[in-house]
Amino acid sequence: MKIIGIDPGVAISGYGVIEYTGNKFKVIEYGAVTTSPKTPFPKRLKILYDEYMELFTLHKPDAVAIEELFFNKNVKTAIDVGQARGVHLLAAVNYGVDVFEYTPLQVKQGVVGYGRAEKKQVQEMVKILLNLKEIPKPDDVADGLAVAICHAHSGGFKDMFKIR
Amino acid sequence: MKIIGIDPGVAISGYGVIEYTGNKFKVIEYGAVTTSPKTPFPKRLKILYDEYMELFTLHKPDAVAIEELFFNKNVKTAIDVGQARGVHLLAAVNYGVDVFEYTPLQVKQGVVGYGRAEKKQVQEMVKILLNLKEIPKPDDVADGLAVAICHAHSGGFKDMFKIR
Repeated sequence: MKIIGIDPGVAISGYGVIEYTGNKFKVIEYGAVTTSPKTPFPKRLKILYDEYMELFTLHKPDAVAIEELFFNKNVKTAIDVGQARGVHLLAAVNYGVDVFEYTPLQVKQGVVGYGRAEKKQVQEMVKILLNLKEIPKPDDVADGLAVAICHAHSGGFKDMFKIR
Repeated sequence: MKIIGIDPGVAISGYGVIEYTGNKFKVIEYGAVTTSPKTPFPKRLKILYDEYMELFTLHKPDAVAIEELFFNKNVKTAIDVGQARGVHLLAAVNYGVDVFEYTPLQVKQGVVGYGRAEKKQVQEMVKILLNLKEIPKPDDVADGLAVAICHAHSGGFKDMFKIR
């Protein structure tokens, strides 16, 4: 099963493309789509949409796993990242792939095994599970890979997280 | 100049299409795109995107004016409406039209003449300026028309509000 995991954002949106077969992981690609604050906001959304559409078309994933937004203070930031996340979802649905959503807690649970793991522990597990030499940088990229792993590990519970 | 004004939302997104020539308004169409809470969220985004794309293609507006989101409490709602608003912006930029953004205060100022006007006063002005028999219902539709009028009235200051 080919999975694209996404940690959505406006300035930087991290992703990881992995193949999961018989409990084994294979990394296909990882990276980030970035947009400049100097670019008009709607244009930034278009860049995100177009880049993800290209990524989906190139890799033909069986599933897209996307991290849920979690904010407890800045509503302005929440709206902006929300706007960007909406465009990620639209790209997935327009491409025609199943979309699954995981909270940060679920990602920790799915990767490390418990929901209160530290960020660093999650990143170490990503490195180990995917047999990488280093932790991918920046954090958003490691987070994109983590949500893909989380989806791979969600096994029979997948339907719980399906949003499309 | 043909303007489409939008009050973006997930369940209901109000819009108004108006023509503004030599200080005179002509209403072309108004209404709302609605999506059901029973529909998976990404699918709701797709409906909004597709409907607006169709509306833009049909009316070929010179400008799209969209209300800025304003929330002071519920972050969860802010994120959801943010996700929907992002898709509205993407439709406009993918269609290739100039997009302008107005805060609720600017809309009041642009329609009634002062920023602390009551909602009811804004709706009455919409009715009068557009020569309608009744205030369009629901509020979201009247708000969509209001932001279109606001843009028409913004005259030489338009560039201040251009986000694309």
